[in-house]
Amino acid sequence: MSILIKNVLLKDKIVSILIEGNSIKKIATNVGSSADKIIDGSDKAVFPSFFNAHTHAGMTLFRGFGDDLPLMEWLETKIWPYEKYINENDVYWGTRLACLEMIKSGTTFFNDMYWMFPAAAQAVEDSGIRAAIAAVFIDSFEQEKANEQRKQNQRLYAEMSKYSDRIMFCLGPHAPYTVSLHSLEWIRDFSIENEVIIHMHLSETENEVKEFVEKYGKRPFEFLDDLGFLSSKVIAVHTIWLSDKEMNIIAERGVNVVHNPTSNMKLGIGGDIFHYRELKERGVNVCLGTDGAGSNNNLDMLESMKFAALLQKFHYSDTTVLPVREAFDMGTVNCANAFGINAGIIEEGKLADLVLVDISKPKMTPRHDILSNLVYSSNGECVDTVICDGKVLMENRVVEGEEEIVSKANEVAFEFMERKDMLDG
Amino acid sequence: MSILIKNVLLKDKIVSILIEGNSIKKIATNVGSSADKIIDGSDKAVFPSFFNAHTHAGMTLFRGFGDDLPLMEWLETKIWPYEKYINENDVYWGTRLACLEMIKSGTTFFNDMYWMFPAAAQAVEDSGIRAAIAAVFIDSFEQEKANEQRKQNQRLYAEMSKYSDRIMFCLGPHAPYTVSLHSLEWIRDFSIENEVIIHMHLSETENEVKEFVEKYGKRPFEFLDDLGFLSSKVIAVHTIWLSDKEMNIIAERGVNVVHNPTSNMKLGIGGDIFHYRELKERGVNVCLGTDGAGSNNNLDMLESMKFAALLQKFHYSDTTVLPVREAFDMGTVNCANAFGINAGIIEEGKLADLVLVDISKPKMTPRHDILSNLVYSSNGECVDTVICDGKVLMENRVVEGEEEIVSKANEVAFEFMERKDMLDG
Repeated sequence: MSILIKNVLLKDKIVSILIEGNSIKKIATNVGSSADKIIDGSDKAVFPSFFNAHTHAGMTLFRGFGDDLPLMEWLETKIWPYEKYINENDVYWGTRLACLEMIKSGTTFFNDMYWMFPAAAQAVEDSGIRAAIAAVFIDSFEQEKANEQRKQNQRLYAEMSKYSDRIMFCLGPHAPYTVSLHSLEWIRDFSIENEVIIHMHLSETENEVKEFVEKYGKRPFEFLDDLGFLSSKVIAVHTIWLSDKEMNIIAERGVNVVHNPTSNMKLGIGGDIFHYRELKERGVNVCLGTDGAGSNNNLDMLESMKFAALLQKFHYSDTTVLPVREAFDMGTVNCANAFGINAGIIEEGKLADLVLVDISKPKMTPRHDILSNLVYSSNGECVDTVICDGKVLMENRVVEGEEEIVSKANEVAFEFMERKDMLDG
Repeated sequence: MSILIKNVLLKDKIVSILIEGNSIKKIATNVGSSADKIIDGSDKAVFPSFFNAHTHAGMTLFRGFGDDLPLMEWLETKIWPYEKYINENDVYWGTRLACLEMIKSGTTFFNDMYWMFPAAAQAVEDSGIRAAIAAVFIDSFEQEKANEQRKQNQRLYAEMSKYSDRIMFCLGPHAPYTVSLHSLEWIRDFSIENEVIIHMHLSETENEVKEFVEKYGKRPFEFLDDLGFLSSKVIAVHTIWLSDKEMNIIAERGVNVVHNPTSNMKLGIGGDIFHYRELKERGVNVCLGTDGAGSNNNLDMLESMKFAALLQKFHYSDTTVLPVREAFDMGTVNCANAFGINAGIIEEGKLADLVLVDISKPKMTPRHDILSNLVYSSNGECVDTVICDGKVLMENRVVEGEEEIVSKANEVAFEFMERKDMLDG
């Protein structure tokens, strides 16, 4: 299968792009005119598709359920009691909805942590995008739960051959305050032995860090470093409350960090902020995530790029911090690099994971700086065409099966809430 | 001319809405079926259209021109030198572009301050939306300039009868640091005599307040209150750096304030923040603005509502501050009230200024809370149909003349930049 994108704007040049199989074969002003499929690129600009470095896709079913509540009240009355009643079918359709929203806003990869791995993996398989999926690993410091979780991860890992290359297995220890020391050691060993990525929430709130220090006598990254846990295979999510020493450790070990500005702001994490400037100075690879739709409330990476850039400018009272190019890289190539995916830039030999953006829209006018228009002015809805792994997933904003996904997601979201209310009161 | 919107979701009920002339005549489950135009409201929800309480519409031509520069460098190298070369034709097409973007994102009113009033007014006239327009009043403390500006405002005000009721004349003193005491007195008198609204930037940066206090021995709102300048006819824009005493004055005089969260963040105003909670406690009418596209970089009110809500939650470390309903009111009814426009709510007898939102979109799914989905998850692109003053300005996302406006705006944006570069080097 080959695709020819004709006369599309790439940076400041009109080019044509030939895709063969799942990768970009040739980029030139003239690459011939024979291909299985021809796409007219006029009035379009081509960009790498977006890489969402942290979300909980299945939680999209909770979008708009309990906004503006105090954090603990939201978790205790709206999330945890209802999550108990979620089944595989719910997670499947919740993840399909998430994938649909991502495709419609130009995202072709997400790093996921949620329940019911097989349902999420099947949804990604059926949607045509890429994902790194981790089953939430929480043992609550109980030996029996720990054994269960380890067995589950071994089983899931052994079953990975049944999925396509678009799906990557990750380990998902929830956070240092929900996972025991012994399980962390097990996860470390499993990661080293199988070269598997670890996806973990770290240092999101001041309180969790304070309690951790009280319990272990060290800050989380010092503790994990002493454990030999930290490497470039670690994707550390949030990383707001960091000491200078911890930032040095993160840099030395090559840990990848994920900033989720929209979620941080909506959850009122406040007080401190993601230290972009200090991490960048140390050469840390910074990626961008939306977090789950429960706390964002969307999965639109262009919107999150804008939130990231503006929050840093506001925090440092400095317009020059986190310029548009860096915000864009956080949501594309930095994340692709963290996961070892050969994408995130439009170049010959790279995977054909890309978007065509409609530059005739009012928000893309005038054309002084197309990347600025994309990140600061537009949002996911400017994406016209999405290609992932050499396959067209959206063209002219049409995604196959959209109506069914929206309808099923609405249905299951209300069904499991009713199940809970019936059974649990 | 009558319009019947059939079977549309209003809050939690399916209703039909009959529009006659420029207002909402009847809302009921059955309002008959005869009208000049029938709109199918299924899979749509109806909301009041959005009211943008502060922008510089013509500046949309500067979108993406000099992002991420230090504030003064941006103004001194990218805005001021080029603005000198803008002509009436440029402002006309820049404002048409702004109006087009606003219609496409559900906004039907904006409060404008820019150069070349007649060009802006004509653009609003031709676009079909509403605006309060003020000519920027800057006298730089020079008598000759002051006389010129006063004459210009008198002339513009006298000419208002040539425009439709959708266009309102306002006085636009730029800021207390660019307008002399005598001109402020003249503006105060003109406002009282003609019952005209005053649109003014106030207390945006720490430095301007500091310099003002050095010069006048009082803070800006104390000074203006002693002058008898403050009333409910004043629209005070930014109002970040306020003392408790100033907040009390604002409340007592019924001054309307306008928060521009996206612009504040992008310009790194930082250090302090718009004091939503303290102003709300005092009963102040708080409106929402996008500011100009040069510092936002769009005019999308739904995006600005999200920025407003999230910035306050982040600032106070409290998720309950500025809940979704209040953010929505800031961008609708609060602004309509400030300008004495009988709109901002969907009710019989109100002006027919409303939007139909497509609730079948992934970002609007599931439907736990449609207002939350609108503000926190969606953006202007979820708006399907826009009605202003009883006329359909957009249907199925199609606006008449869109292609020409985008093309002309691109053309003039580059032309005046070339003029400047040729003549000025």
